[in-house]
Parts: sequence; structure tokens; C-alpha cells
Amino acid sequence: MLLLVSYDVSTETSEGRRRLRRVAKVCLNYGQRVQKSVFECKVEPMQLETLKSDLLDIINEKEDSLRLYRIVEPLEKNVMEFGKFKAVDFTDTLIV
Amino acid sequence: MLLLVSYDVSTETSEGRRRLRRVAKVCLNYGQRVQKSVFECKVEPMQLETLKSDLLDIINEKEDSLRLYRIVEPLEKNVMEFGKFKAVDFTDTLIV
Repeated sequence: MLLLVSYDVSTETSEGRRRLRRVAKVCLNYGQRVQKSVFECKVEPMQLETLKSDLLDIINEKEDSLRLYRIVEPLEKNVMEFGKFKAVDFTDTLIV
Repeated sequence: MLLLVSYDVSTETSEGRRRLRRVAKVCLNYGQRVQKSVFECKVEPMQLETLKSDLLDIINEKEDSLRLYRIVEPLEKNVMEFGKFKAVDFTDTLIV
């Protein structure tokens, strides 16, 4: 399944920036970074629990907000992108 | 359809903060703000073009990134939320 992970964290503190780096590192195991704190991840159902628990180990639940959404597939027909960044189509090439 | 709108803009400048406020104002016509720059929007197909064109009038395509994703419905079964913010279930009550 395809997930969009969005992570709202204050990057005004070094701790916040560190958490964002760690969240990015976990998410990059499953997909790509499309915005500063938004990631497209392709996971098998079994991997979802691992992803969730890895992310929950990182975030500060009192200060941050983490949201995971299932997005409609195929991705290329269900995403519209504007502005300076265009994502790559990782769905064909990613080995999961 | 349900859309997730994510808007990556630098809020270090007053122009960036202003664009974020304007994007938020447009998105709030269709749904709710769930993170600083992430919005859940419920739109009819006809409204999608209006939403897109209103957003494109605001953003700076050279500096910002705007992404719209179709998310799997029903929302409450396809979103996982962690941390300090919990969204309201607007799908039953919003008049579109």
C-alpha cells in the first residue's frame, strides 16, 4: 500500500531538527521525501507496523504531529504536483 | 473526493508566511487544517479545478512546493494520527 507520511515538528530547536532527520531516515527506507516533512512510502501490510513503531520511537508526542494516510493508487494518477519539486515515480522500481 | 493538500513554503520570510495564510484560507473552505501546512479537503470533481486554480494563484512556483493527493476513503479508516493534534471527523458534517 502507498502511504503519505506527514510530520509536523518545530525545526527551531536542534532536537526538533534531529527528530526530523531521524524520521526522514526511517521513511527513506520505504520511499522518497517529497517535501521537507512529507514522505511517500510504499509498504507491505507487515511492514506497516514496523514503520509505525520506528516512527513512534522517534517523535515527541507532546510536541509533534505525525500523520499517515493511505493514498489512492496508482499514485501517478492521484497526485498533482506544482512548484519547484517533482517527485520520481518510484513505484515501478522500488524493491520492497 | 478527499484530498490531502501539502504545501511546502519557507516561513522565514513575511511573503512566505503570507502565502501560507492565503493557502490555508482557501483550503479551509473545503475542510480542515491538520498540520501547519497540511490540509484535508473534501471536494466535488467540479470544485477541484477551482481549488487548484485558487491555490496556483497564490503559490510561488519557483520557491514553493504544492502537492494534492487523493486519499482512500473512508478517511477514519485510512489515517493514523499520532502526537499533539487530533483532527475532527468533518466528513459527516461538512456541507459541500
